[in-house]
Amino acid sequence: MSDKPRFAVLLSGCGVFDGAEVTETVTTLLAIDRQGGAYRCFAPDIPQLHVIDHKSGQPMEGETRNVLVEAARIPRGAIDDVAVFDPSEFDALILPGGFGAAKNFCTFAVDGPDCAVDENVEAAIKAAHTAGLPIGALCIAPAVIARVLGDVTVTIGSDAGVAEGIGAMGGTHKTTTHAEIVVDEANKLVTSPCYMLDATVSQIADGADNTVRALMGMIGKG
Amino acid sequence: MSDKPRFAVLLSGCGVFDGAEVTETVTTLLAIDRQGGAYRCFAPDIPQLHVIDHKSGQPMEGETRNVLVEAARIPRGAIDDVAVFDPSEFDALILPGGFGAAKNFCTFAVDGPDCAVDENVEAAIKAAHTAGLPIGALCIAPAVIARVLGDVTVTIGSDAGVAEGIGAMGGTHKTTTHAEIVVDEANKLVTSPCYMLDATVSQIADGADNTVRALMGMIGKG
Repeated sequence: MSDKPRFAVLLSGCGVFDGAEVTETVTTLLAIDRQGGAYRCFAPDIPQLHVIDHKSGQPMEGETRNVLVEAARIPRGAIDDVAVFDPSEFDALILPGGFGAAKNFCTFAVDGPDCAVDENVEAAIKAAHTAGLPIGALCIAPAVIARVLGDVTVTIGSDAGVAEGIGAMGGTHKTTTHAEIVVDEANKLVTSPCYMLDATVSQIADGADNTVRALMGMIGKG
Repeated sequence: MSDKPRFAVLLSGCGVFDGAEVTETVTTLLAIDRQGGAYRCFAPDIPQLHVIDHKSGQPMEGETRNVLVEAARIPRGAIDDVAVFDPSEFDALILPGGFGAAKNFCTFAVDGPDCAVDENVEAAIKAAHTAGLPIGALCIAPAVIARVLGDVTVTIGSDAGVAEGIGAMGGTHKTTTHAEIVVDEANKLVTSPCYMLDATVSQIADGADNTVRALMGMIGKG
């Protein structure tokens, strides 16, 4: 890609209610670019759990969409299947949030702590972790990290139910407010609550910026 | 809304190839919020011209989507039908770009300078202009403004064909590069090329920021 710090950005679709949260995704890409990094987006090539009409909030019965195809709307088509993610080509991995993280990356939204994780998403997270890459996760996405890696310390803000679910998956939850981050140094994890709180777009941008900055600080450290 | 400067943001869907450009939209909302403004999103309640698979770039045959319903993905459902837009409730109007501006707001992508404009989009632009509201437009969206208002001075960057089309609609085109704006003081218009040029997300954010700042400076001036 370049000699800049290289970020893989893992998306779960396009739209908060059934995919990746759009503002969290764009402000993550903006933070990486503004802080001197390069990025490549990835998504799983699978059907969405369902399609939500984002105006009414209701499911669109009979409609089917593909996570990779919809996620491509955000980075203007510059996206790859997560099945080809190779951690040796990157310096960090980051997962924006949105319900897609709990509906398409895994079944947490339906099954809670006993959720299944998409095999390619799980493989990507495990490969990044094993390779020593720092990993960032926003909003509800830390729940996927906890399900895959188990004994990690993360934040999803202050939602008691989700925090309890993270505990049930072997993780430790720390309560945070707007734009704060939780750093798990041992596991090289950085998490921030973003839209798990009722936030402004500026607060989301600050959360993404702080998360990327902490990841930048971890890159290249043993 | 509040005693902050109030921006109406007019969206043409969700995704560069058949709707509103996502990064231009999010960075516009971020610029408004960071500069102390408030915003409300609007979109026309009409079918998209077509649906493009943003991974392959090809049309998805047989697929139909609604502009308002898809645009709702960006502002998390907080969006209204442009038919109810009332300029007395706002201090400025801004149109992010994306092909949706030339495919859903009007037929410029198909018909060029002789294009038709959606009646509610046209009414909103005319009402805002008549009420003395400053209007901003990014990327290809200035073409819609030229079609509706005629004798205006705008930029869409440096694309010769589109610039010629703006001339044919009665407008004057000025060439610009990344993040530059063209200000038409007489018509209270601010335009910036954004993704009409091959740009980085930071350059898009700078273009949106400069456009919003110029609009802020015009608000309240006679």
